[in-house]
Amino acid sequence: MDTCDKVSRFMASSGWECRVMGIPKTIDNDLNGTDHCPGFASAAKFIATSCMEMSRDAGVYDYPTATVVEIMGRHAGWLAGSAALATLYGDGPDLIYLPEVPFDLQAFIKRAGEVLQKKGNLFVAVSEGIRDKNGVFLSEYASKGAEGKDAFGHVQLGGLAAWLANELKQTFGVKTRGVELSLMQRCGAHLASRRDIDEAMEAGKRAVQAALEGENGKMAAYTRESVDGKVVTGYTFVPLTEAANVEKKVPLEWILPEGAGVTREFADYVLPLIQGDCGRETVDGLPRFTKLKQIRA
Amino acid sequence: MDTCDKVSRFMASSGWECRVMGIPKTIDNDLNGTDHCPGFASAAKFIATSCMEMSRDAGVYDYPTATVVEIMGRHAGWLAGSAALATLYGDGPDLIYLPEVPFDLQAFIKRAGEVLQKKGNLFVAVSEGIRDKNGVFLSEYASKGAEGKDAFGHVQLGGLAAWLANELKQTFGVKTRGVELSLMQRCGAHLASRRDIDEAMEAGKRAVQAALEGENGKMAAYTRESVDGKVVTGYTFVPLTEAANVEKKVPLEWILPEGAGVTREFADYVLPLIQGDCGRETVDGLPRFTKLKQIRA
Repeated sequence: MDTCDKVSRFMASSGWECRVMGIPKTIDNDLNGTDHCPGFASAAKFIATSCMEMSRDAGVYDYPTATVVEIMGRHAGWLAGSAALATLYGDGPDLIYLPEVPFDLQAFIKRAGEVLQKKGNLFVAVSEGIRDKNGVFLSEYASKGAEGKDAFGHVQLGGLAAWLANELKQTFGVKTRGVELSLMQRCGAHLASRRDIDEAMEAGKRAVQAALEGENGKMAAYTRESVDGKVVTGYTFVPLTEAANVEKKVPLEWILPEGAGVTREFADYVLPLIQGDCGRETVDGLPRFTKLKQIRA
Repeated sequence: MDTCDKVSRFMASSGWECRVMGIPKTIDNDLNGTDHCPGFASAAKFIATSCMEMSRDAGVYDYPTATVVEIMGRHAGWLAGSAALATLYGDGPDLIYLPEVPFDLQAFIKRAGEVLQKKGNLFVAVSEGIRDKNGVFLSEYASKGAEGKDAFGHVQLGGLAAWLANELKQTFGVKTRGVELSLMQRCGAHLASRRDIDEAMEAGKRAVQAALEGENGKMAAYTRESVDGKVVTGYTFVPLTEAANVEKKVPLEWILPEGAGVTREFADYVLPLIQGDCGRETVDGLPRFTKLKQIRA
């Protein structure tokens, strides 16, 4: 959006009539000026679904286990928080950590111990972007070791999930597994939200239409409306300057006091967005993707 | 199956009439005496689908990238080989390595370079169980460093995918990502194969029925039949002794000469098994799982 804004201004200052409209997309859901971002809901649906499934997988053992799943979102916890939908529907993370609140390793270990004691196993979801009270990414602990040392200059390749899982193993002696949802959470089109797809198409169409009608320097944006008690999406345009360079984070009042989960308000925000089956096209049981073809005139 | 066999023999030697039937399940697909194993096809479908999606994700950049995905299967390459279905349908790994054939790091780097040169990006699938010519798991290289040294006794937490990705980064200076399909590939029930589910139910039903009719010490097994040119599954029973303690590996003639992929025969073996949508039950867009409830008489 910042680039759109720059291009738009440059065109205006060059006296060349080129209308620039921003059509957003980011699974991170952190753009300002829009209720939510195209792509987010589908990633959220993949995350909630996978967490439900992994929670059951992790719960089948008759000995204590701890599973840590790492979810994308370097600065905003929209994706990690979406794992709470799994818990809401009966099978999900016991503890969820977002980057909006400083992560306290000791407090985490204490909470983890309590869950293990009570439930016999533990399932934790963390945002890749969790930081300690000094602003240091926990993923840096993982890549450099707990004391911030880089042994022999060797790159330690383990991710945050593996590192936190190892902390739990060292503390509680339980069997652990660190899981990264990695690329799958952003490209798992087979689980896309129908509503997300439809909205994205609509936003793109409206932005092009608006440009044709003379609009310029705006971003297509969603509003949240209520019709007969049902959450529906409205469409609007906001100045690119409003959307550019501001990260919309999860409101602190939607994060539980001890920082280990989200409130019902968060779930109520996400749940309507993930509705509808994508009705995926398949050939022989495998996805069929649209391929654009260049046709020479 | 080995345990089933032992229990069956013990019961017989104790003179207690208890009929024991083995009902197999393993996504690893490595049980002897059956054409394929319940669970395998659903995991294969998840793997092929995810690889198709990740291949497109990895291919969107206008600079060279290398993606390495690590797939379950410690001793048999059925799951890793299933990634070839993605390639067959147009978007999948360029190179696939199975544990049945020794992994040669230098040959891999050479092939990787050729693909990067030709295509501009690279997508590799490896079985977690690939070993070098001395039988050492490559995952041990990853956990101990290339020279087998454990620097300072620190546990390096990175997995095989991250380690191989780093080798490619060091060699070619490209942007890399290591991905583990991890738990998702064995619990991704939302992508289950309808045929796999139906067959598993049928195998279980037939095993119970057979036990009621006096059968003992057998495993429910699948045969592969052809009806009007279509592959269908037949049901049979094999002695537990035949199934126990023998790992069925991918036939060497189904693995490409240089060991970096599988033949059309492999794809023809897997493809019929992954057919049919699971028709998953959902509530509010999220999975609904069957829960067994204890009812007191």
